[in-house]
Amino acid sequence: MARAWLGMDLGGTNTRLGLVGEGGILARRHLPTRADEGPQAWLERVVPVLQELMTWGRGEGLEITGLGVASAGVLEREEGRILFSPNLPRFDHFPLGQRLAAATGLEVVVENDANCYALGEHLFGAGRGEDLACFTLGTGVGGGLVLGGRLQIGPLGIGGELGHLVVEPGGRLCGCGAQGCLEAYASATALKAMLNEALAGGRWSRLQPGKGVKAMERAAVAGDELAQELMHTAGTMLGRAAAMVAVATGVELVVIGGGLARGWFLLEPAARAELERTLCLVPARRLRLVRSALEDDAPLMGAAALAQRQ
Amino acid sequence: MARAWLGMDLGGTNTRLGLVGEGGILARRHLPTRADEGPQAWLERVVPVLQELMTWGRGEGLEITGLGVASAGVLEREEGRILFSPNLPRFDHFPLGQRLAAATGLEVVVENDANCYALGEHLFGAGRGEDLACFTLGTGVGGGLVLGGRLQIGPLGIGGELGHLVVEPGGRLCGCGAQGCLEAYASATALKAMLNEALAGGRWSRLQPGKGVKAMERAAVAGDELAQELMHTAGTMLGRAAAMVAVATGVELVVIGGGLARGWFLLEPAARAELERTLCLVPARRLRLVRSALEDDAPLMGAAALAQRQ
Repeated sequence: MARAWLGMDLGGTNTRLGLVGEGGILARRHLPTRADEGPQAWLERVVPVLQELMTWGRGEGLEITGLGVASAGVLEREEGRILFSPNLPRFDHFPLGQRLAAATGLEVVVENDANCYALGEHLFGAGRGEDLACFTLGTGVGGGLVLGGRLQIGPLGIGGELGHLVVEPGGRLCGCGAQGCLEAYASATALKAMLNEALAGGRWSRLQPGKGVKAMERAAVAGDELAQELMHTAGTMLGRAAAMVAVATGVELVVIGGGLARGWFLLEPAARAELERTLCLVPARRLRLVRSALEDDAPLMGAAALAQRQ
Repeated sequence: MARAWLGMDLGGTNTRLGLVGEGGILARRHLPTRADEGPQAWLERVVPVLQELMTWGRGEGLEITGLGVASAGVLEREEGRILFSPNLPRFDHFPLGQRLAAATGLEVVVENDANCYALGEHLFGAGRGEDLACFTLGTGVGGGLVLGGRLQIGPLGIGGELGHLVVEPGGRLCGCGAQGCLEAYASATALKAMLNEALAGGRWSRLQPGKGVKAMERAAVAGDELAQELMHTAGTMLGRAAAMVAVATGVELVVIGGGLARGWFLLEPAARAELERTLCLVPARRLRLVRSALEDDAPLMGAAALAQRQ
C-alpha cells in the first residue's frame, strides 16, 4: 500500500494543509488561522479539514501514518508545544502535538517552520539531496540547516537559527535582545523600521512612513534611492550571513525563501558583492544563492517528511 | 588481535608521532620538522621513526592498520596533498599521503590539523562523545566542527574553518583576503601586529615592539593596560565567533586549543561577556567554553582516529 503523510504549516495568518506522498503534494487545503480566536477554536476548524484529507487519501488507497506540523515560534519538541510565538500569542503553551494526535489518531511531530522549509527544499525543491542552508525572509528571518540529509538542531536546540547570526556587531537591536542580528536588517519588520527612521531623519523618498516591503520593492524598481538603499542593506547583510554559514559548515547551497524572496533580484547583487568580500577561502562564486523552488509549499512538505521519518 | 593506528601532527616547527589504541596514546615520538630542508629530507627522517613505532607495536601484539596525518595548510584530501601551507612552504604540492603510504605500507589519510584537533577532543578529550566546535588559537586560528560524531567538512571543503568567521565587518585585513576575520584578532600573529601598531601609535606599555604572546600574557598579568586590552580584544572576538557557531549549528560545547589556550584565563572573561551580549536565543551560560584537555596530543589522536575510520 502506498503511504502518505499529512503536513501542516501553522502561520500567524494562514494555516496550510497538505497530503504529501513520495512524489510531492497530492492534495492541499488552506484556512485562515484567526490566531486571536485562540487555539481551541482553531483546532475545531482544522481537525475536520485534516479528516477530510485523510478520508480522501484512504479512498485513493493510501496509508496515512503521520502528521507533521511546521510552526512559527520557539518550540518544546518532545511534547510538540509552542513555548512562545509572537505571531500566535494565544497559542503559547498550547499542547499542539498532543491535541492533534488525539483528534486524528496519527503520530504528530512539531518542528520550527523555517527548519521544515529547509527540509522541504532539500527533499523536493531547490536543493534535492544536497546539504543546504535556508534563510526565510518574512516578518522575521528564520533559518534551517540540512547536513547529511538531516536537520541540524544541535544540543542547544537552536541550530539553523540563521536570522540571529550577528552580522553587524553593536548594530540594530533585534527582538531577541542582541544587537546586529540578520533579522534586524533583512526582515520585513526591519525594513519598515529602517524606512520609518530614514524618513523621520529627513531623507526624501516617494514612500510614506509605514509602507511595507511590497511598496518598497516597487519604489526600488522605480528608482527610489532610499528604497534601493534599504534593499542593498538587507542584501549585504544576507550575503554576510551566508558567508558565515559557508565557513562554519562548508555548505555550497543557500536557499532564500519567505516573502522577501519574491524580490530576490533586488537583494541578490548586494548579497553577491558581500560574499565576494567576505568569503575568501574558496572562490565565492562556488557558493550558490538561489531562490526557493517551493515557496509557500516548502514548510508543509518538510513537516510531512519529518512525520514520514518518525 | 588488538588494533592500533599511527597518528602524526605535521607542524611548521615540530612533527609529533604517536601510536594510538582504543584507549589513547600507547607510544609517542617527536622530531623537528626542519621545513626549510624540504619534504624529501623530512620524509627520510620521519619514516624510520614510524617504522620503529610499528615494530614496537607489533612486538606488543598490536595490529597496525593505518596512519592519519594532521597537517597545517590547505589540503587536497583525495591524494593527501598539501596545496598551500604558509608554515611549510617547501611542502606545497608534495604528495604527502602517497609517499607515506609507499614508505610504510599503511593506508594513509591526511586532514587539516585543526579538524584533527576537534576530532581528538571529541573522542578522547574535553568533549567525549559530544558535538563540539573547536578553535585552535596559534600562529593562525584554526577550527573544527564535530557533529553527530563526524567532522563537518561540507561540499565546499571549508566546514569548521572558524578562524575565518567575519567577527568585525570592515575590520582588520586577514591573510585570506577578507576583512575582520577572527584570525585577524585572536591569533598570535594578530596580537603581535596589534601590539606593534599600538606602540607605533604612541601607546605606553612595558612591552617592546615585536614581543610575542607569552610576553603579552605576562604583561597582562602584571597589569599592563595595553596587554590587557589586546587580550580583551582577542577574547571578545572569540566569544562573538563562538556565539555564531552556536546559532548556526546548535553546539553546546566550544573547545579552545592552541598556544593561546594556555592563557585562556586572560581571554575567558571578555569571551563570556561577549557571549552574554550576542547569544540571546538561549541562556548564554548554556554554551560551555572550555580549554582543550589534550593540548598538543589532540591533532595526532584525531588523525589516528581518522585512520581507524577509513
